[in-house]
Amino acid sequence: MSDSLSVFSDPKSVAVIGASADPAKWGYWVARGALRGAHRRDVHLVNAKGAVIDGVQSARSLADLPSVPELVVLTAPARTIPAVIDEALALGVKGFLGITAHIDLANDEPGLERRLADRIRQAGARIVGPNCLGLYDAETELELAWGSFVPGGIAIVSQSGQLGLELAGLAAHAGLGVSRFVSIGNQVDVTAADLLADLLSHDATRTVVLYLESFGAGRELVDVMTRLRVAGKHVIVLTVGASDASRAAARSHTGALTAPTDVVAAACRAAGAVLVETPAQAIDLAHLLVGSPLPAGGRVAIVSDSGGQGAIAADAMARHRLTVPRFSDRTRAAVSALLPEGAGAANPIDLAGAGEQDLDTYARIVDVLMRSGEVDAVVLSGYFGCYGADAPTLVERELEVAAALALSVAEHGRPVIVHSMSHDSEVVRELRTRAVPTLFTIDAVARSLGLAVDLVRSEPPNTSGPAIPAAPLSEAGEALPYLAGRDLLAGAGLNYPRAVSVRTPEDADAAARDMSGPFVLKAGWLEHKTEVGGVAVGLASPEAVGAALADMVARLGEGDYVLEEMDTRTDAVEIIVGARRDSAFGPVVLVGIGGVLAELYRDVALALAPVSVGEARRLVESLAGLPLLTGFRGRPAVDLDAVAESVAAVSRLIAEDAGVVECEVNPLRVGPEGAIAVDALVLAATPTPPQPTDPVRDVIP
Amino acid sequence: MSDSLSVFSDPKSVAVIGASADPAKWGYWVARGALRGAHRRDVHLVNAKGAVIDGVQSARSLADLPSVPELVVLTAPARTIPAVIDEALALGVKGFLGITAHIDLANDEPGLERRLADRIRQAGARIVGPNCLGLYDAETELELAWGSFVPGGIAIVSQSGQLGLELAGLAAHAGLGVSRFVSIGNQVDVTAADLLADLLSHDATRTVVLYLESFGAGRELVDVMTRLRVAGKHVIVLTVGASDASRAAARSHTGALTAPTDVVAAACRAAGAVLVETPAQAIDLAHLLVGSPLPAGGRVAIVSDSGGQGAIAADAMARHRLTVPRFSDRTRAAVSALLPEGAGAANPIDLAGAGEQDLDTYARIVDVLMRSGEVDAVVLSGYFGCYGADAPTLVERELEVAAALALSVAEHGRPVIVHSMSHDSEVVRELRTRAVPTLFTIDAVARSLGLAVDLVRSEPPNTSGPAIPAAPLSEAGEALPYLAGRDLLAGAGLNYPRAVSVRTPEDADAAARDMSGPFVLKAGWLEHKTEVGGVAVGLASPEAVGAALADMVARLGEGDYVLEEMDTRTDAVEIIVGARRDSAFGPVVLVGIGGVLAELYRDVALALAPVSVGEARRLVESLAGLPLLTGFRGRPAVDLDAVAESVAAVSRLIAEDAGVVECEVNPLRVGPEGAIAVDALVLAATPTPPQPTDPVRDVIP
Repeated sequence: MSDSLSVFSDPKSVAVIGASADPAKWGYWVARGALRGAHRRDVHLVNAKGAVIDGVQSARSLADLPSVPELVVLTAPARTIPAVIDEALALGVKGFLGITAHIDLANDEPGLERRLADRIRQAGARIVGPNCLGLYDAETELELAWGSFVPGGIAIVSQSGQLGLELAGLAAHAGLGVSRFVSIGNQVDVTAADLLADLLSHDATRTVVLYLESFGAGRELVDVMTRLRVAGKHVIVLTVGASDASRAAARSHTGALTAPTDVVAAACRAAGAVLVETPAQAIDLAHLLVGSPLPAGGRVAIVSDSGGQGAIAADAMARHRLTVPRFSDRTRAAVSALLPEGAGAANPIDLAGAGEQDLDTYARIVDVLMRSGEVDAVVLSGYFGCYGADAPTLVERELEVAAALALSVAEHGRPVIVHSMSHDSEVVRELRTRAVPTLFTIDAVARSLGLAVDLVRSEPPNTSGPAIPAAPLSEAGEALPYLAGRDLLAGAGLNYPRAVSVRTPEDADAAARDMSGPFVLKAGWLEHKTEVGGVAVGLASPEAVGAALADMVARLGEGDYVLEEMDTRTDAVEIIVGARRDSAFGPVVLVGIGGVLAELYRDVALALAPVSVGEARRLVESLAGLPLLTGFRGRPAVDLDAVAESVAAVSRLIAEDAGVVECEVNPLRVGPEGAIAVDALVLAATPTPPQPTDPVRDVIP
Repeated sequence: MSDSLSVFSDPKSVAVIGASADPAKWGYWVARGALRGAHRRDVHLVNAKGAVIDGVQSARSLADLPSVPELVVLTAPARTIPAVIDEALALGVKGFLGITAHIDLANDEPGLERRLADRIRQAGARIVGPNCLGLYDAETELELAWGSFVPGGIAIVSQSGQLGLELAGLAAHAGLGVSRFVSIGNQVDVTAADLLADLLSHDATRTVVLYLESFGAGRELVDVMTRLRVAGKHVIVLTVGASDASRAAARSHTGALTAPTDVVAAACRAAGAVLVETPAQAIDLAHLLVGSPLPAGGRVAIVSDSGGQGAIAADAMARHRLTVPRFSDRTRAAVSALLPEGAGAANPIDLAGAGEQDLDTYARIVDVLMRSGEVDAVVLSGYFGCYGADAPTLVERELEVAAALALSVAEHGRPVIVHSMSHDSEVVRELRTRAVPTLFTIDAVARSLGLAVDLVRSEPPNTSGPAIPAAPLSEAGEALPYLAGRDLLAGAGLNYPRAVSVRTPEDADAAARDMSGPFVLKAGWLEHKTEVGGVAVGLASPEAVGAALADMVARLGEGDYVLEEMDTRTDAVEIIVGARRDSAFGPVVLVGIGGVLAELYRDVALALAPVSVGEARRLVESLAGLPLLTGFRGRPAVDLDAVAESVAAVSRLIAEDAGVVECEVNPLRVGPEGAIAVDALVLAATPTPPQPTDPVRDVIP
């Protein structure tokens, strides 16, 4: 454990400032929680009136304590906090847990919290919060928070204290527990990334649920999440902003198609973490991550004592990208031999009462399936976990079968997941104790299994990943003229047709005679040239070019027009490739099929930039419209390598050139014979005076 | 209540045949359940050995009973059942509940169950089942099933007994109860539609959950579901088959795009019922349907005492097609006046501790929102329902606020839905009692609210709907030659270009000179003409036509070729319009944008046929790709009326012409100047000898 943060997980002594005897006040909850650890550490209570709290005499001030506490919990009124901190630092306190909120406001002093944090750091101490809900560590019996916790394997790190409590409550309701809970509050000193790093060596933590509304140094978070994944601790990420309207104002399609939550999703994929949408999804998934092996692939066998439940389960799996494969004849015969006449040995397996007649049938069938090598996971859906609850004579037998299932899982390294109609029977609890994930709805099983398979299939995270790319001069950008943008993208590796700048009919005529038609003429200095009639296509002859130029000059005025050879391939598919800088996670790259489809069906793929050609190819292959590129309905297959190389080139440009804040090729036309870029939008950074750094940026504007 | 079925909901007397003293046997559960109603009706137990069961002496046979029971429950061994039924009918028994399974198998007599049903009906009696799990009625305290039930407002009618029990268990776990439960088993006599009809007059039933794997006379089900909706009882439908692989073998795109579950979805829309995917989704939705008013639209206000939970809730709403609108300045000011400084009066509203300081803030804010007219529903997300659980001094106040919320709902006719971090506190139970839907996850709230809004927005069901269309001669079909198919579709109202049949170069030349080029030449007798090179497009001159014909004759042989004028509009969008007959629900019609998009993104809409032009237009407007038709990115808007008229025409053809089993126009090319059909596939019914009627068809093949 990192030395500097151990004061927050196992302090030698604690003082609660603002402890209260009123059970409706935070100062009471925190004091009561702190006292539960009094057999492990000195616990002091400080109350201005010297109240007796749960039988314990409190001191009137820090100075009155018999010894200096290592950790001070701040629950006193906000206006008293600065003085308390100064006093504590003078005494030599090493850590502060800031629960009190609105310190700036109460003291009418904007920026006070950050200045207090500076003073704390200068004194060699640290602060979590302020404006947090507290923390909890199961192993060290440190309980300094509102709420109550059940010990277990999940660490919760949450920017919203109450959302953290909801996670802990959902876990407890589902028979899981918490190893550590930290409400991070305003993060004036200790950040989410610091706390995640501290979990690397926290043995009790098997999986981490992280809730963040804002991401500061996003790449640092990616780095620590990657290290957690490599250490075998999965990270489940929750964030908000999916319903954010900020996309509407984007200048490019790339901007419109990369919402902040899409970037968070890309960051999670890069780190080998899982992004979920709600607290319940996080806890459902945690069931699978706190001890069970994960499925190596998406092939699922379903075993049910009800044909209806088996069929519902099969549909649920399909909705979550899993397959319920046909068994081989051999496996089918082996399953059939264990079932009565009339029962279904196909997948889903319908026990048709065989479970009731002999509960061991479940274990025997699971054993056959595990040995078959034909499935990556087995789902029991229905009555298992309820037999003993309804017929007490069956409890012992059902517990034995639960043990046998757990042994089978351990032996074969493949998971068994149980959907039980009982929420909390003795057998259900036993299954969870034995790390056989057991959930109350098939929805939760299917979604979690789908996410677990995505996780396993995701790129192995690269711990020595690319250096964090150069920051841009500015996040604001100014559109380069078309020819300049083309040149920059061509320099990065994009393949453009021949083009020259023309201003007069004479230029145009000469240029057209020197190049191969047909041609496209573009009003190159306009950002939205198509919308204002600044693009003329299919100009077959020098004469047609001249006429088009004359027409445009008449309408749009003189300027730097660009004459370009036209890509006339009829078998080409249009692709959009774009890149921009996210203010938290830095450069990202995007690819989608056809501007229209990408937008209407949101069929795009996003990744942190830069990406290798191989990564780029996997991005392209993840598109729903991939068949359009690979020979759908008799079309020719296009050059996927050329697409991947173009995507990688754009990703390098945004990552390596700090002068580019956004760029887009829309469309890139790709056919069997390669890719040709036929448009270019580059927003160049505009130098601005450096802004005061705010390490935290809200996803919600 | 329908006279003939009252024996299954409130029999004057019941006999359980096969009653058992062994608590692990069905005969025990059913006997015990039956005895619970002994104060309301005569309950007799029949056990071959005359056992004493729960203190009650059983008779050895039906004949030994002191009086004739009205309803007989069959739980005896399968081979004894035929004799029991004959004996009972001779005595004058009016109803049978067939729990025992495998009667055909045990008696080695295929079709026996149906013959027994015939005998029963001929004697003026009825049978539910066999192979069912029993039934329950809360009001009449009739309990003849495995499992245990909590009384409430949900009727469950289930083809899978255990899935029905899962529904009942999920309801009980969530604080809801069951008005009636019927496991319908093999439906040899009483069908799901009969039982639904019987619920029309069942006052205790507020909403119905129906689970079916197979649909017999589908239009009859649509009719009874429609009548339930009109009677104010919502129907929630669960089925299976979404992961069915049967689509792969379809001959047309229409066939490939209309899976059995898609047809069920269309049937539900026609009936004003809701199709859900899982038992948990059904029960979550039932919370909203058992007593609360439904939202008139999708505008939701969110009130939370946590910014994080409010933001998560807002994202969840957006994912379920709901909006979280900006408040007017007036409403914002009114909300703000109720909150402390620093709290958020925007939507989502963040109480920031105001709830804790004064719980009545919740009721006051809800009142402001109800009166504003700016939202259709209010969602409380977070700690409400937990205050009293954590601080017992707050219980009374929290209960009062719950009552105030319920009053506000009743006064304004708009729902309040609570997502509470407590699963089952006293306040949560009180909210449910007062019909304020209260759920444990925001996922469940958002999904259910989204489904409720879809339900309210769906077409008002038409009780005097179209007559059930003529059955086809056969479900098998034979492809008509292109010209014949065209003629049939053109006769129905589709707009085709000029075309003539040509067999020789002389025919072709003469025809081409008489028509306007360019032309398309098609090998009209081939079903998959494109795939074999039987279509030549863009033939500009009679000479080109002649050459193309010579080439095709050389490759494909002589035959009825079709020369057709080519639709050369560059601003046309391709649409697919198709129709087929579903074996359960009869004729259905489908529309999608572009064959490729329809297939890749499954962007199609389906309805029971026939549809009016207005209904057809709403189908088209429901497509994700609609913007492609309405002027996306500077494209011209196409003639939507022409599309709707074409869809309606195809739907009439399939509904009215029993000789057509499937037809498809792919593509229909539609531009600003109307729609032109450029292909035709019609599968004509092939007369076959009538098959023995099986009223039930499996969705799962």
